[in-house]
Amino acid sequence: MKIAVVGLGNLGRSAAKIVKNMPDMELFGVFSRRNMPDTLPYDEIMEYKNEIDALILCGGSAVDLPVMTPFLAEHFNVVDSFDTHADIAKHYENVNKSAKTGGKTALVSCGWDPGLFSLMRIYADAILPDGKLRTYWGKGVSQGHSDAIRKIDGVVDARQYTIPDYNYEGDNPHKMHRRECFVVAENNADKAEIEHKIKTMPKYFAGYDTAVHFVSTDELRQNHSGFPHGGRVVCDNGESAMELRLKLNSNPDFTAGILVACARAAYRLNSEDKTGAFTMADLPVRYLARGNIFDMM
Amino acid sequence: MKIAVVGLGNLGRSAAKIVKNMPDMELFGVFSRRNMPDTLPYDEIMEYKNEIDALILCGGSAVDLPVMTPFLAEHFNVVDSFDTHADIAKHYENVNKSAKTGGKTALVSCGWDPGLFSLMRIYADAILPDGKLRTYWGKGVSQGHSDAIRKIDGVVDARQYTIPDYNYEGDNPHKMHRRECFVVAENNADKAEIEHKIKTMPKYFAGYDTAVHFVSTDELRQNHSGFPHGGRVVCDNGESAMELRLKLNSNPDFTAGILVACARAAYRLNSEDKTGAFTMADLPVRYLARGNIFDMM
Repeated sequence: MKIAVVGLGNLGRSAAKIVKNMPDMELFGVFSRRNMPDTLPYDEIMEYKNEIDALILCGGSAVDLPVMTPFLAEHFNVVDSFDTHADIAKHYENVNKSAKTGGKTALVSCGWDPGLFSLMRIYADAILPDGKLRTYWGKGVSQGHSDAIRKIDGVVDARQYTIPDYNYEGDNPHKMHRRECFVVAENNADKAEIEHKIKTMPKYFAGYDTAVHFVSTDELRQNHSGFPHGGRVVCDNGESAMELRLKLNSNPDFTAGILVACARAAYRLNSEDKTGAFTMADLPVRYLARGNIFDMM
Repeated sequence: MKIAVVGLGNLGRSAAKIVKNMPDMELFGVFSRRNMPDTLPYDEIMEYKNEIDALILCGGSAVDLPVMTPFLAEHFNVVDSFDTHADIAKHYENVNKSAKTGGKTALVSCGWDPGLFSLMRIYADAILPDGKLRTYWGKGVSQGHSDAIRKIDGVVDARQYTIPDYNYEGDNPHKMHRRECFVVAENNADKAEIEHKIKTMPKYFAGYDTAVHFVSTDELRQNHSGFPHGGRVVCDNGESAMELRLKLNSNPDFTAGILVACARAAYRLNSEDKTGAFTMADLPVRYLARGNIFDMM
């Protein structure tokens, strides 16, 4: 099947690399709005609508995907990783409408959270209804928190690590994780003021145990250039415990691996005339499989 | 929905208890071949075919389910936990035929292995195709191995624990687990002979590091009457690692929890005219969910 990638950020680069190595897939190309070597211009994507079996959309959830996925889902089978949890139902509806109109299949909000972690929460809630269900994230880089720090006056660059306390079993969500920030400040910036602004930032940092370290651009590049992440979904009713653990050196590589498997599923669903939008919770795992599922039972 | 249980062993008792506590379910009754208090006679099960929304079949995989599931699937929505891995494809075919004939829905081979562990293996194979995939079982009681010991001349009762070595990463499957056996022998039995027969038993024990302890009936009852189990499915490609862990005080309780959730799914699938046989790999998790899946995304 011919798969194309839209967007050439970290996620898009990982997706293109994985598609190239997948025996049952061919990388049709990477579409980008920026005029970069070895990319196809995004403006011309409609010209290829009959040549591509599925598109992997690697845009951001804040601005790109809410518009791009419904627009493209009318003309292509698509997969996205829309991850604003509170808006998934609305996104699903928008995409479902246009995919149904065009007779295409869209898999939305694929990845590990939302995605694999969502599946684990739903299985756990069904199987252990009286269990205590918790999601821990990290240790890993949170792009959203890093971006929030970068918007503060006087900040040149920043990297925020979310660090879970797996031993914490109380009910205060702010105690499950602490936050560690590595910040490059402008030469004449008021570091005390930056630190105060970070630690008191509503939703992102206020209420959390937050540490702020000022570092040089070189140190940030050398020691904090990767995108490690991971986490755990744990459900325990005192008698039975089920747990999903992820430990990722590269969050974009792992997420892209899920998107590529979902592109296979989108193409297969569409081949069976199953059109409209699906989340991973609407999708039997059979559609992701490379081989005979009975061999893996 | 009205759910009935077939069989009153450990699994059936757990399933009946869970159905009773499930707000969206009513326990129609427990069918048994043995004439026991509070059970309905299995011989008369056909009389109730229009009153039951799904049957949870709690028979054994060796003798009961290969016959019982295809027979009942023509007349009821059914769920079973057929767990002879090598024969699942054949069992699925048999059940599919009769469920299709009767316009009913059957979920076969539900549980944790096959079941949740199968799902995890299929997800891992799709997402990390270059990963090393391993399944560890235990520490827990293996019914199959315990039964195999019980069949040896001079053995009154036995309990076999499968004990994983999570640190073992080599390629010899016999090194991933060791086996510990607690055996009650007849008074005049040749214990050395029993131990030899256990340790050299093909498939079950030969090749494994096996310890045999002779104990009294009282000790077996006091210290080994439970059915703890668990295990891990691990997939690691050196960059990303995903892992599903289970730790169960009661294997029957946890397995029954899965069967009960699958009974909900069988009923719902049938209400949508989705008939025939399904494994958990053919089933979107949405069908198991108690609430709105978007709340758990």
